Amino acid sequence: MADCIFCMISQGKVPCHKVYEDEKCFAFLDIAPVSRGHVLVIPKEHAAKMHELSDESCPALMLAVKKVSKAVQEAFSCDFNILNNNGKMAGQAVHHVHFHVIPRRGIKEEFSFNWVPRKQQGDDDAEEILERIKERIIGSANKQ
Amino acid sequence: MADCIFCMISQGKVPCHKVYEDEKCFAFLDIAPVSRGHVLVIPKEHAAKMHELSDESCPALMLAVKKVSKAVQEAFSCDFNILNNNGKMAGQAVHHVHFHVIPRRGIKEEFSFNWVPRKQQGDDDAEEILERIKERIIGSANKQ
Repeated sequence: MADCIFCMISQGKVPCHKVYEDEKCFAFLDIAPVSRGHVLVIPKEHAAKMHELSDESCPALMLAVKKVSKAVQEAFSCDFNILNNNGKMAGQAVHHVHFHVIPRRGIKEEFSFNWVPRKQQGDDDAEEILERIKERIIGSANKQ
Repeated sequence: MADCIFCMISQGKVPCHKVYEDEKCFAFLDIAPVSRGHVLVIPKEHAAKMHELSDESCPALMLAVKKVSKAVQEAFSCDFNILNNNGKMAGQAVHHVHFHVIPRRGIKEEFSFNWVPRKQQGDDDAEEILERIKERIIGSANKQ
């Protein structure tokens, strides 16, 4: 897409610190890392959110995420998060699918997340949730 | 793996609220959700961490993550995070690869993360980071 910064980066029109590239994917250092070695992996196909990405781009994307994660893990002997945000309430800032690979070293000043106090999933509510989600999965399969 | 709870769940040996299943993947409601509709998507292949998962399982896993995300998004008209934790310092509790699909509705009491104060990536340090990561990616390609 013409005015998408990540499309421009993957097309070489905007400079970046490139980590990896293949036919369908591109990876580069985050311009403002939340930990040292923070990499973004993106599909070259433009899609704003993960559920809008074509089935053609998905397989290559997970392989690229794996390849980059493995290299980051070996390079820094670190633990790591893989994080993809979809929508403003989920923290998405650039509207082109991107997977963060975030090294974690147990340092207090680094990226972290808050698991809220978690209650056990109740059976009754689970049934209602399942009905809503599974209906959409079946609906999607029928459309194919 | 015999004593892995997620292997047992995907093999039907331990009950769960199942959301989705295909030949290589399985999805179910998190037993202690951080938001309503929190789903886990796992490969049936046992691998503790993402960089240890075989290239055969990766494509199906991203397709399953997309399929489940799409259904969750449509079911709840929500934003969402996709999160995969690798290692104790990254918050991994069960040592079988799993992708969290976490609905986000902008509610204060829900799961969130802390982006630490971010500095611009410096060029000098970027060169050193790139050298360390890219060496591993090239090394990995040469081994194939």
